[in-house]
Amino acid sequence: MQATTPASDRTRIRRIAERGQYDREMLDTILDATHLCHLSFADERGAHCIPMACWRTGDYLYVHGSNGSRLLKVASAGAQVCIGVTHLDGLVLARSAFNHSMNYRSAVIYGEFERVPEHEKASALDAFMESIAPGRSAEVRGGNEKELAATTVLRIALDEFACKVRTGGPEDDPKDLDRPVWAGVLPLAMTPQAPEPDGETANAPAYVRNWCCGDA
Amino acid sequence: MQATTPASDRTRIRRIAERGQYDREMLDTILDATHLCHLSFADERGAHCIPMACWRTGDYLYVHGSNGSRLLKVASAGAQVCIGVTHLDGLVLARSAFNHSMNYRSAVIYGEFERVPEHEKASALDAFMESIAPGRSAEVRGGNEKELAATTVLRIALDEFACKVRTGGPEDDPKDLDRPVWAGVLPLAMTPQAPEPDGETANAPAYVRNWCCGDA
Repeated sequence: MQATTPASDRTRIRRIAERGQYDREMLDTILDATHLCHLSFADERGAHCIPMACWRTGDYLYVHGSNGSRLLKVASAGAQVCIGVTHLDGLVLARSAFNHSMNYRSAVIYGEFERVPEHEKASALDAFMESIAPGRSAEVRGGNEKELAATTVLRIALDEFACKVRTGGPEDDPKDLDRPVWAGVLPLAMTPQAPEPDGETANAPAYVRNWCCGDA
Repeated sequence: MQATTPASDRTRIRRIAERGQYDREMLDTILDATHLCHLSFADERGAHCIPMACWRTGDYLYVHGSNGSRLLKVASAGAQVCIGVTHLDGLVLARSAFNHSMNYRSAVIYGEFERVPEHEKASALDAFMESIAPGRSAEVRGGNEKELAATTVLRIALDEFACKVRTGGPEDDPKDLDRPVWAGVLPLAMTPQAPEPDGETANAPAYVRNWCCGDA
């Protein structure tokens, strides 16, 4: 793993270039805070942008789905794909309309997926579950042969990517600073809400009790 | 505006088709709950997936940016684009690994952008600000001629789209229901956090006081 990847022609950020970051630490932080990516690819009908569950293990981002998925068929056939992950952190209210902005952390990854071999699929999927609910992969009924056979797992190397990040308050023009209007940030965050048990169910394990709002 | 749009070859949902929805009411609900989309297009370097601020007014979704943006140049030159907006609402923990899922509301829009004419740009941008902060467009310094001239505003008709929604608890196989493992939903929600004023600033207006956490 390289700490910093040189920007490629596809990943070099030109627009407000100082917000661009190319280090794996930032990429990993952004990816590990999400369960969702948008996966883009193009075919004869144009570009597509499809939401997918995802998870990172080491130097790869993983997605999975049914063998029957057209998306996964295209993605596993060597198509060039682009994956976007964005966290919106706040609305930035400046004293002039033009200087309004948003705080965000975004990552864009380019490349090709590769198919995770049959004998590695179960452990790849376990890693996904463990990333959400430590210990759970030993508690649930594991995938049987038929279920695993029906599932495609793909991964993409984290080789060609760019992150773009904005933090902090508004950047007003000096001439606007005295304007009598509130300025600042209206923050947003993805936050866990109270767990919803499915009817009669077993006692809540730690990853449920600690999900939100103190002991459930 | 049609209440329901027939699925096109690009938008027809085949995978778990019963989660597909093609009505404008659902689309509008999903779009009006976001400030962010992922915009995909393809060029000679492959597919791209770029996060963009967005807002809906009537039968169009709008984006804006600097005239210098390569993305906006491509998007305004008639490229076929695809826009994804997804809200992740929760992780669905089933009694078997295979039946784990996520709750979400997603929309995918296909088509071509059109350029908002010069004389309509200011009001289009005001609508964006008003959707976030009612009344604010009259409080801030409005865009001057130079700022507006430097800004491209694009819109795409909401004609070709599909929504996909999952709600509710896990759907376990009957044979798994007695398994002694917690099952249910771990909900997630994008929630406003306490406003962060930018140093010495004017009194907070209603859209700031009501943003979060009672009176700020």
